[in-house]
Amino acid sequence: MTTDQAHALLRGPLDVVHAGIDEVIRGAEAAGVPVERLEFAPPAGGELDRIRMLRRLTGGALGAAVDAANAAALERLLASRPHVVGVGLAREVVPGMKDNLFLHAGPPIAWERMSGPLRGAVVGGLLLEGLAGTPEQAETLAAAGSVRFEPCHHHDAVGPMAGLITPSMPVWILEDRADGPRRGNRTFCTLNEGLGKVLRYGAYASEVLQRLRWMAAELAPALGEALAARGPIDLKLLMAQALQMGDEGHNRNRAGTSLLFRQLAPALARLPRERESIAKVLSFIDSNDHFFLNLTMPMAKCMLRAAEGVALSSMVTVMARNGTDFGIQLAALPGKWFVGPAEPVRGLYFPGFTERDANPDIGDSAITETAGFGGFAMSAAPAIVQFVGGSADEALAATRRMRRITLGPNPGWAIPALDFAGTPTGIDVRRVEELNLLPVINTGIAHKDPGVGQVGAGLVSPPWSCFHQALEAFHAHARERFPQP
Amino acid sequence: MTTDQAHALLRGPLDVVHAGIDEVIRGAEAAGVPVERLEFAPPAGGELDRIRMLRRLTGGALGAAVDAANAAALERLLASRPHVVGVGLAREVVPGMKDNLFLHAGPPIAWERMSGPLRGAVVGGLLLEGLAGTPEQAETLAAAGSVRFEPCHHHDAVGPMAGLITPSMPVWILEDRADGPRRGNRTFCTLNEGLGKVLRYGAYASEVLQRLRWMAAELAPALGEALAARGPIDLKLLMAQALQMGDEGHNRNRAGTSLLFRQLAPALARLPRERESIAKVLSFIDSNDHFFLNLTMPMAKCMLRAAEGVALSSMVTVMARNGTDFGIQLAALPGKWFVGPAEPVRGLYFPGFTERDANPDIGDSAITETAGFGGFAMSAAPAIVQFVGGSADEALAATRRMRRITLGPNPGWAIPALDFAGTPTGIDVRRVEELNLLPVINTGIAHKDPGVGQVGAGLVSPPWSCFHQALEAFHAHARERFPQP
Repeated sequence: MTTDQAHALLRGPLDVVHAGIDEVIRGAEAAGVPVERLEFAPPAGGELDRIRMLRRLTGGALGAAVDAANAAALERLLASRPHVVGVGLAREVVPGMKDNLFLHAGPPIAWERMSGPLRGAVVGGLLLEGLAGTPEQAETLAAAGSVRFEPCHHHDAVGPMAGLITPSMPVWILEDRADGPRRGNRTFCTLNEGLGKVLRYGAYASEVLQRLRWMAAELAPALGEALAARGPIDLKLLMAQALQMGDEGHNRNRAGTSLLFRQLAPALARLPRERESIAKVLSFIDSNDHFFLNLTMPMAKCMLRAAEGVALSSMVTVMARNGTDFGIQLAALPGKWFVGPAEPVRGLYFPGFTERDANPDIGDSAITETAGFGGFAMSAAPAIVQFVGGSADEALAATRRMRRITLGPNPGWAIPALDFAGTPTGIDVRRVEELNLLPVINTGIAHKDPGVGQVGAGLVSPPWSCFHQALEAFHAHARERFPQP
Repeated sequence: MTTDQAHALLRGPLDVVHAGIDEVIRGAEAAGVPVERLEFAPPAGGELDRIRMLRRLTGGALGAAVDAANAAALERLLASRPHVVGVGLAREVVPGMKDNLFLHAGPPIAWERMSGPLRGAVVGGLLLEGLAGTPEQAETLAAAGSVRFEPCHHHDAVGPMAGLITPSMPVWILEDRADGPRRGNRTFCTLNEGLGKVLRYGAYASEVLQRLRWMAAELAPALGEALAARGPIDLKLLMAQALQMGDEGHNRNRAGTSLLFRQLAPALARLPRERESIAKVLSFIDSNDHFFLNLTMPMAKCMLRAAEGVALSSMVTVMARNGTDFGIQLAALPGKWFVGPAEPVRGLYFPGFTERDANPDIGDSAITETAGFGGFAMSAAPAIVQFVGGSADEALAATRRMRRITLGPNPGWAIPALDFAGTPTGIDVRRVEELNLLPVINTGIAHKDPGVGQVGAGLVSPPWSCFHQALEAFHAHARERFPQP
């Protein structure tokens, strides 16, 4: 009996789940019966109410309706065609952005509950905007409510780590170019600052602010003009190539950064600017293999936005962390957060740091896994597995596991090591609960104190409570729209 | 019994090889004996004289001396540190280059025996140098002996496909930066012309010559000045990264080209030139994913040159084809060619072409396999296997097979899909004969007529006769230096 067969049994006419299986087997073993031990675990953590919900949501006419809705949601996601079309100031292009509004990663959170790296980024943002003169002043202002905080996700935006977007920051502008009703949908993300001491890890030293000012004054206009001259870039095509070149689009973006660099450099060289100014822009991109991350993230957001609002779809459309809480959203319930505590990251630390220095999981970058790459495409990037102490075979196994909780492969994104099978795409909250199998996320680790920066990288999963709440809310929503005996 | 064990037996006190094994087994099978069939084939194609030579070269004190020499040759190869240090005109930098001397791929060959693509390239070279005014004139001059032909390999150079180097062509200059006696060794290669109609495939239309003139007038000086400004580039480090990014360095060079582009672009942008001129240089490189091939080839040549002259080494240091003949050389016998007929390439053809259009195997690019990448690192580049109709598993198997005929792994060049095992490096002519296993080479396919261009890509092996002759000559050489009963 396989685990899947065991689960199939549970969809039959049973109302009792025996949680003592191991004891039963030990008795049989003692009696000399040959026993093959399975990895079996009861669905939904063995919680009876949720097992009943699962049975309703997977069987009969309602199950079929959810399947059909999920197929439609996946089709929308796969049909989206995010292009990077330009660069603008957040204040001018991000919908709903205004003075004294700061956007951050993850679900909503107040200053009081913010973790160190997010507080550090807020302090940096207040200094950058000229709203505070010193870090102490900034903290006082933030605590006093002089600035409002909202999730990036409430503004069609995403941000890595702290994910801070303040009004004067430049952002990439992405647009869905697919034919149909979602054509023209836009998503946004800041430009990647590079490695070392950076705002997204909560650093706010003067070098951090100076770099951000240079990015707004020089880098962003140059990139915007180069893009305008050469035309929009199809990011899914670029990502397809990067997946053939060892990237998974979350923790490894060397290929994507290189291919983007090639596409932009000739247009940058033609700009009517000082040679040194263009050379500095090129060197800045070249010095940071994560430059492309801030395009894979809004690409993922653009794809997932296309699936939002499919009424009976149990597909996950957001996974995001603010450093304190982890939140997810479902296609059927757009805008509604299901929140649990952000978990510690299992990973390797840079010399001199240990897990005691680590902040819990933070950042909107789990949007990459939500859209079917990053940790879900681990087998495309064995270099990352090596970094966290694994093997190429473990990378293949990780991708195969994620197939079990997803709706289907992305035929446009082939993984060479899996004989060009598509990346597993579209997390089904039902499958997560049924198989007791959480999504795996590749991530960086931030220091828990503001201003320090990155201390390592590793793997993390969402807390179970997000999925339990999501399943319950989805069940209620589905039963309301689809009443049945 | 494994094939290796069977081979080991043959090194024992036996002087009879029974070639009728299959019949013997059939008798046993008929009698009801359980039989496990092996892939076993007798060493050296079953030829008794060569089996005796192999026994002497692999056993006893001589065998140990050859093993030690091969270990030294491999160490030299692995210790070499090829850097690209500049760009110059062939006439000024390639040793022994002079007016009316044309260099070509592969072993020596006269005009009369040259294949279509090499003849086409020679015609183009004569037009480019202004020695002929029309293709007809060029053919007459070439047939009359007005120009001399020598292999690139005789001048520390290599060239893809026809491999033509004429005096006024610009070339990359590579230098061995390893400490020790080989420091300062230089190798050379032309700059890659791009795809479509190009001289290396025998095309000589005016667009081909115009491009070559622009490359000499604009591209080469810009690259040379950019290199001078930024300093030499360590090519083995670049290649190590490219192998993590889906390149094998022969038929796939997208990652290497991208990484090189990143390293050169900022320095190019700083050159005191018209913006449009620099933008054209950047666009030219960006338009051709094979641009880096003309650096992997002289890098391989530089590594292998370091191993030349190790007196008792049976390592292959050159594999090269001129479109008519295939030639190899050994570390112990530098400069001595062992030549056989160039074989047809097994591969896939571009639409409209078939194997009837194909020229036999051509080009110096097999130097990449000789140095332990290209076809030997197939598992680093599954995209190529897919192109020739194979799977990721077949790519792994191909690399594992090449391990059996090579001296050891290159610890600097890890293959992710093989859990970061090094690329198999240093072909041992003894192992090729002992295992009846020829090196595999990834290659492009040229049209057999001059001026047409590439018609496909695929896999090819050297002819057996090269290895038979090499084994015999090495045996004679070794016995002379190491007389024993």
